[in-house]
Amino acid sequence: MNRIKIEFAYDGEKFYGFQSLPDKRTVQNELEKALTKLLGEDIKIVASGRTDAGVSALKQVAHFDTNSSIIATNICFAVNKLLPKDIQVFSSKKVSDNFHARFSAKLKVYKYLVYNSVHLNPVYEKSMLQVSKKLDLEKMKIATRFLIGKHDFSAFASKDDERKNCIRDLKNIEIYENNGIFEFILTGNAFLYNMVRIIVGTLIDVGVGNIDPKKVDNILKSKERKFAGKLVSAHALTLVDVKY
Amino acid sequence: MNRIKIEFAYDGEKFYGFQSLPDKRTVQNELEKALTKLLGEDIKIVASGRTDAGVSALKQVAHFDTNSSIIATNICFAVNKLLPKDIQVFSSKKVSDNFHARFSAKLKVYKYLVYNSVHLNPVYEKSMLQVSKKLDLEKMKIATRFLIGKHDFSAFASKDDERKNCIRDLKNIEIYENNGIFEFILTGNAFLYNMVRIIVGTLIDVGVGNIDPKKVDNILKSKERKFAGKLVSAHALTLVDVKY
Repeated sequence: MNRIKIEFAYDGEKFYGFQSLPDKRTVQNELEKALTKLLGEDIKIVASGRTDAGVSALKQVAHFDTNSSIIATNICFAVNKLLPKDIQVFSSKKVSDNFHARFSAKLKVYKYLVYNSVHLNPVYEKSMLQVSKKLDLEKMKIATRFLIGKHDFSAFASKDDERKNCIRDLKNIEIYENNGIFEFILTGNAFLYNMVRIIVGTLIDVGVGNIDPKKVDNILKSKERKFAGKLVSAHALTLVDVKY
Repeated sequence: MNRIKIEFAYDGEKFYGFQSLPDKRTVQNELEKALTKLLGEDIKIVASGRTDAGVSALKQVAHFDTNSSIIATNICFAVNKLLPKDIQVFSSKKVSDNFHARFSAKLKVYKYLVYNSVHLNPVYEKSMLQVSKKLDLEKMKIATRFLIGKHDFSAFASKDDERKNCIRDLKNIEIYENNGIFEFILTGNAFLYNMVRIIVGTLIDVGVGNIDPKKVDNILKSKERKFAGKLVSAHALTLVDVKY
């Protein structure tokens, strides 16, 4: 038996999210179907984590076990021919049996894109969220200071998240602005359900002046979802990297 | 009568190009239809130039004349409600009768995006061209030196271009690389039909080693389309700016 690690990218637009669901087009379903066909045995993958419906990935990681004798590094080329164009595997290699795509993951990096303009932009709209009110970069940066670090992020998780332990280590939030486009880069050991999108939604509320930057500390400590900002659209979010 | 200058953006994907064509969905048709409806008179626009089918614009410029008494700066907000989401006007203002969107234009800036990878990438694919063979940035930069300047660009124009004068002033070509993504920025006073895409196609041929960088000078001087590289896909090209 060989354990194989794959790295892959997908455009989230036409999937019902990542996780296997009966009769739905999910990333996991499509990957398992193609790998099963290629390797001639029933393949189940374990990914670094789920992504919400509509979220894309420039680099997502998974592992699976196989008895097939196919050369591991060839799997990516062979399986891509069986995959739809909106998921493609760009790396495959044999790893030790200790490697676990989820438990071995040390860091995840997400990117959220916002364009700040009173007008819709047909080019940006496909991959960014439009915010009409002027965003104040400095205020948003002040707010990030309260969020960075090891905290209970209950206030920034969907109520549907049933995990009891909501402590996560948010290593960094960077915000860059260029010609009205704001790039939010969040790096953490793991994220709760909807956590990236609720944090960005809260930072946007700070940026447009609806929330005082210092209040973000209170929101965090309240552990109450209702005090944080809104859940922003998934289409502007991309999983950029998973580090081991 | 007032002359109005509008600045607008469009996603080229679902248009049969820019120019008015009977019974086709073109950018010009959609804009004229919406402006005609808004202003209650037959509006014809004059743009800075056409863009090929499939090409997007972050900033395209046009002018038109109207007898309407609507406040010029309000036109963009009002017309956007009548436009499809893939064209949106982001600025409208009254200009002098001497202003001409095409003849007054001094510079146009185009951006072409390439990702250099043996694998397709579902996220990048929507707005970039995939090139499998490794691109040599330095070789491409050497080739650009022969193209920058005032030249007869017949070798880099579609044979369908019927203009007799093929002399254009190509002010600059910049190429940036970042994590396998190559951004080609071309700035010129005007461009021939397909010129940007044939230049980028030729630079890619140089980058992958099919054409010696110094041969680009011979190609230019030959004035023969057949010696230049191939016409690359329109979907990765964006008109970024028009300067007056």
